[in-house]
Amino acid sequence: MPNKTLNLNDIETFLRNFAAARDWQQFHSPKNLVMALSGEAGELSELFQWLSEDQSWLKDDTETKKKVANELADILQYIVRISDLLSIDLNDALWKKLRRNEEKYPVELSKGTAKKYTEF
Amino acid sequence: MPNKTLNLNDIETFLRNFAAARDWQQFHSPKNLVMALSGEAGELSELFQWLSEDQSWLKDDTETKKKVANELADILQYIVRISDLLSIDLNDALWKKLRRNEEKYPVELSKGTAKKYTEF
Amino acid sequence: MPNKTLNLNDIETFLRNFAAARDWQQFHSPKNLVMALSGEAGELSELFQWLSEDQSWLKDDTETKKKVANELADILQYIVRISDLLSIDLNDALWKKLRRNEEKYPVELSKGTAKKYTEF
Amino acid sequence: MPNKTLNLNDIETFLRNFAAARDWQQFHSPKNLVMALSGEAGELSELFQWLSEDQSWLKDDTETKKKVANELADILQYIVRISDLLSIDLNDALWKKLRRNEEKYPVELSKGTAKKYTEF
Repeated sequence: MPNKTLNLNDIETFLRNFAAARDWQQFHSPKNLVMALSGEAGELSELFQWLSEDQSWLKDDTETKKKVANELADILQYIVRISDLLSIDLNDALWKKLRRNEEKYPVELSKGTAKKYTEF
Repeated sequence: MPNKTLNLNDIETFLRNFAAARDWQQFHSPKNLVMALSGEAGELSELFQWLSEDQSWLKDDTETKKKVANELADILQYIVRISDLLSIDLNDALWKKLRRNEEKYPVELSKGTAKKYTEF
Repeated sequence: MPNKTLNLNDIETFLRNFAAARDWQQFHSPKNLVMALSGEAGELSELFQWLSEDQSWLKDDTETKKKVANELADILQYIVRISDLLSIDLNDALWKKLRRNEEKYPVELSKGTAKKYTEF
Repeated sequence: MPNKTLNLNDIETFLRNFAAARDWQQFHSPKNLVMALSGEAGELSELFQWLSEDQSWLKDDTETKKKVANELADILQYIVRISDLLSIDLNDALWKKLRRNEEKYPVELSKGTAKKYTEF
């Protein structure tokens, strides 16, 4: 059974120690980390760019799935690192966002359409 | 005190219900969600593009910090959604990746340098 | 008839004057412009994220096509600006790249497959 | 002396023939090409992510400059390919955009500030 709770404290501590041991704090400005996240998002895109939507479910493609897991992990670590450095409460930000999406996309207006809320 | 455990079950369930209620599963192929994640990464970049590294710490800039929290939340929800749809164990992927980084970037080779491991 | 030659001199000159008149050279480090390009690439992604491949041909969707033209123009101006600031010969770089792609993707190995050249 | 006119006809023709010879038109939906462009923008980001703004001028770093030229070429070819497939007039789109930017960013409001026009 997968562990379904991400322990942000542990991840933050790991990343802090990892950077400190390598003297990498000098590179870890929020701006730089945001660029690094962009780079990883680009690598994720590359895994899917020539796949059809059907193929993108990666039914029997365990090799690509491993690579995807790897890229998601990369993006996630940058999210945690950035939020740590900027003292952003990730849980709070996430749930606020999800609640806001409920308001921005009321079921009756958004059912079956991919329109942006600004177009309602 | 911020809650430092992200409950992936709760987030996944919220996102599943959110999509189902709006009949949005039709849009949520992994490929499409990866593009949506790219879009959010782009919005995060825009918040930092004209800031110096110093400014990117957002010392007294609570307004930008809120926007950053918002974009990190957006990216995070897409990561959770994609990993849910592809049955990827995010915790496992993350910690595997972190352990691998320890091997790829040994302290003695990577100390004080931003070189990629392929250049060692 | 569309004009099929992009005059890089004119575009570079426009962009230089545009930045100079607004005292924006201070913001236009190559690093910052690369982030701005990422942001525009993200906006382009957003226009396509929920479209199927079929819909992405934008057959009768002149409104989205205008937005796409707009985003492509944004990305293009950043490419020209970055290459100007770094004294990169864009024509030369492009044709070198296209020739290299011919070598990396020989017809007999790449026919009908989206494999990357590293996987041949 | 670098050639300062990009011949879009020649580039489009090259790319059409390149795709046709490899039976790659099946992969070249606008949606897929937009993802590929995102991937290349991510690679460009990676080249700059750990550089300071000063270092990003690549003064004596011809090796990185070559890689940057290479990535700019990659992004450019996708822009040309997408505009070809969607019958977008790139020259027209670019100059319309540049003129619009003059209106959106009047010198007196934008001088010395990186604010977005929506914040004036």
